Amino acid sequence: MTDDPVLLTGAGGRVGRAILDGIGDAHEWRLLDREPISRSRLPESVADAERVIGDVTKPATVREAVRGVSTVVHLAGDPRPEAPWESVLTNNVDGTQTVMAVAAEAGVGSVVFASSNHAVGAYETEERTPEMYRASDEFRLDGTELPRPSNLYGVSKAAGETIGRYYHDSQGLSVVCVRIGNLTQGHPPRNYERGQAMWLSYRDCAHLFDRCIRADYDFEIVYGISNNERRYYSIERAREALGYDPQDDSAEFHLDGSPR
Amino acid sequence: MTDDPVLLTGAGGRVGRAILDGIGDAHEWRLLDREPISRSRLPESVADAERVIGDVTKPATVREAVRGVSTVVHLAGDPRPEAPWESVLTNNVDGTQTVMAVAAEAGVGSVVFASSNHAVGAYETEERTPEMYRASDEFRLDGTELPRPSNLYGVSKAAGETIGRYYHDSQGLSVVCVRIGNLTQGHPPRNYERGQAMWLSYRDCAHLFDRCIRADYDFEIVYGISNNERRYYSIERAREALGYDPQDDSAEFHLDGSPR
Repeated sequence: MTDDPVLLTGAGGRVGRAILDGIGDAHEWRLLDREPISRSRLPESVADAERVIGDVTKPATVREAVRGVSTVVHLAGDPRPEAPWESVLTNNVDGTQTVMAVAAEAGVGSVVFASSNHAVGAYETEERTPEMYRASDEFRLDGTELPRPSNLYGVSKAAGETIGRYYHDSQGLSVVCVRIGNLTQGHPPRNYERGQAMWLSYRDCAHLFDRCIRADYDFEIVYGISNNERRYYSIERAREALGYDPQDDSAEFHLDGSPR
Repeated sequence: MTDDPVLLTGAGGRVGRAILDGIGDAHEWRLLDREPISRSRLPESVADAERVIGDVTKPATVREAVRGVSTVVHLAGDPRPEAPWESVLTNNVDGTQTVMAVAAEAGVGSVVFASSNHAVGAYETEERTPEMYRASDEFRLDGTELPRPSNLYGVSKAAGETIGRYYHDSQGLSVVCVRIGNLTQGHPPRNYERGQAMWLSYRDCAHLFDRCIRADYDFEIVYGISNNERRYYSIERAREALGYDPQDDSAEFHLDGSPR
């Protein structure tokens, strides 16, 4: 943990927005996105942050972007669960390899990688659902299980985790992979048990990434969900390794999303 | 198990040679390779096998090659542990996705995927070696552990396993991933404890792939090594799921490779 800027790739996306809304004033940021991010779309606290336009699949762009950075929060990639293979192969797999390789080479201390629940979506078999989405069910994934992606996007995220493992083992880069659940603002997804069981509030998202930026770790895979009473992802490892202490719980809302 | 031909991709490589030498006469083969395989390099039993020249990264080529096939043994890819990222991304990751996707779409029953010990090479930490290569050490990898690749080639093989998992879960393709050890003909690698602990003889290699072609399974990750007294990979799952019954043991040879 230093005062060096944190590079946020894919800063213009939804996860980027949740992070900057919540902890925009807690760090110096360098914002990288393929598209220009207009000042009006940024919270006031980061309105003057350095902005870089470029693609994470281009090593030269990433080399320039990591200069002087001690932490990279790597969100960039095609975020669509239904994205075609060609896109996730390039933007997610190759992009993540480029970011990790360049970060390791440049002596960046840690990379926080936005992985996804889709890396393990196929554990939700017909035999287990919908019971696993309910409070009485004790099935838990904890990050030690092998990937079982539910789509090619999930395949690409699992591959990104393995790339992170490689750069940790071979070059000492600290890497934490956050399997982000269902991120929504204000209230959990409406009338969607599954989404409520893996809800991640904006507030908890920002706090979790703050912990990922500040904590010391080697290589970790954690789940990024709120403190939901109904859940099938364990948050124990995020608590232990990162000091994650989520405040929200989808059980504080009715199934239709209204507060209890 | 039917009498349909078995498609062997990367048939001209070293693993292909071990398989065809040992079980060339046990199946009908269709041999795919990027380069022409000269008849003289093929064992007599497959001298008349159908040969296809083409690249597994080309869907049209693979579509043509899987016609009428019930099992694909997928060996094709860049086999070099030190291969650069660009090559393994294309030839191994994208190539394996193409093979699995086309096989699933065409109704092929099972794909046998040549994975590698390099997918887990970084478990061999300084603290564990060289003790883990010796008979007294009880450390075992069994295929349930997360990948820890020792190089980008290993990253690509781990990604191939996850791609297999995805096509199994989503489309019912039977997939077995064989983490091949150190394949050498005649005797174990010379003066190389590590290679002896993960030795796979040609005979056991052919038998293991024969079991992969004949057995019924859903999704499996197994280690492909001989019955070595010194080992750190478990072969229990290969025995149980496939009926693998290896005959060779590197302990039957001196450290210098000569028979005891």
